Amino acid sequence: MKSRTNNFLSKTDILNAADQTFRRFGPDKTSVTDVAKLLGVSHGTLYRHYPSKAALREAVTERWLEEQIIIPLAELVEQAAGSPLQNLRAYVEKLIELKQRSEAQDPELFSMYAAVTGQATELIETHLQRIVSQLGRLVEQGRAAGVLAVDEDSEVTARCIIHATSRFHHPGHAYEWKSPATRGEFLQLWSLLERGLVSPQAHFKAD
Amino acid sequence: MKSRTNNFLSKTDILNAADQTFRRFGPDKTSVTDVAKLLGVSHGTLYRHYPSKAALREAVTERWLEEQIIIPLAELVEQAAGSPLQNLRAYVEKLIELKQRSEAQDPELFSMYAAVTGQATELIETHLQRIVSQLGRLVEQGRAAGVLAVDEDSEVTARCIIHATSRFHHPGHAYEWKSPATRGEFLQLWSLLERGLVSPQAHFKAD
Repeated sequence: MKSRTNNFLSKTDILNAADQTFRRFGPDKTSVTDVAKLLGVSHGTLYRHYPSKAALREAVTERWLEEQIIIPLAELVEQAAGSPLQNLRAYVEKLIELKQRSEAQDPELFSMYAAVTGQATELIETHLQRIVSQLGRLVEQGRAAGVLAVDEDSEVTARCIIHATSRFHHPGHAYEWKSPATRGEFLQLWSLLERGLVSPQAHFKAD
Repeated sequence: MKSRTNNFLSKTDILNAADQTFRRFGPDKTSVTDVAKLLGVSHGTLYRHYPSKAALREAVTERWLEEQIIIPLAELVEQAAGSPLQNLRAYVEKLIELKQRSEAQDPELFSMYAAVTGQATELIETHLQRIVSQLGRLVEQGRAAGVLAVDEDSEVTARCIIHATSRFHHPGHAYEWKSPATRGEFLQLWSLLERGLVSPQAHFKAD
């Protein structure tokens, strides 16, 4: 416990303390009081910023998703220099790698994120929309280049790709990721998706 | 509680009693003793058949999956009379309908199945393999008819289709099924998959 000499409590201070406490005690056993203690403030003071443990869990998860997932993927989109299909695949593989690595190396925060996923619909939908926007930019580049035969709204296709690959990056499937077959199953699925993405004739036939 | 006049305790008796008890008290609150009481046998007698509550949950889930999912889908495969693409879509839509209906109308058993999914790897893999075999028969019919341009091993493609549509039938995504956008999102994804399944040129290009 550290004591505070002034009343200023920044969002970063609170999230750092909550993050540290969730990691130490686990998300289920952590109480708001534990976080307040680490900050050297009263339970009431912390409640004025985050009115429940759920609110604190969501705020930590939101920042964690930003730092662990969105920022590395944004860098990949900025630097994408391959063919349209290579860029799409690199994005999805990076998303999968980031999720699977978090699950293995950062289990407390990953399991908190998994629990929040089923509860905080708005937070998760916002996160998903950011993923869709990032991937949508790469889809749009491929469509503009005439390589992808897809819907004019590139985010529709991006969302399809994210849904189709859920098994490899959605936390509800984490129990499946340890199987040695997983990597091969992704490659088979990706091959099927690529055929769908590039096929103009089939596109018009199926419409 | 009913009393038993002989020692014969069939698997069906036990599973019926366990099913009824799980529905009444909920899977978390049910104890093996509750099931033994309903059967009119001692806790020890029941333990000789199912050595833990986990074993009882798995046995009930296994039967539930058979009755609620596998049997109706087997009937659909037997009666499939449309084009290959229509048959594939009918199968996947039926799988989705059965899962989503169970979640809405049979929440106790569905939530038990959802919990078992992350724990009983072998049971769930066996269930998945049965789904893959059923769908694989329909894929094989489409491949033999020259409509689908897919791997010689039809079960590889069937497994891809099941993985690609996980979001709509895997219990880890149940929280997403209430969204009114879900149906449209499935149709968009299905259209992308169909293009991949029928496109021979793209197939050879992508290899």
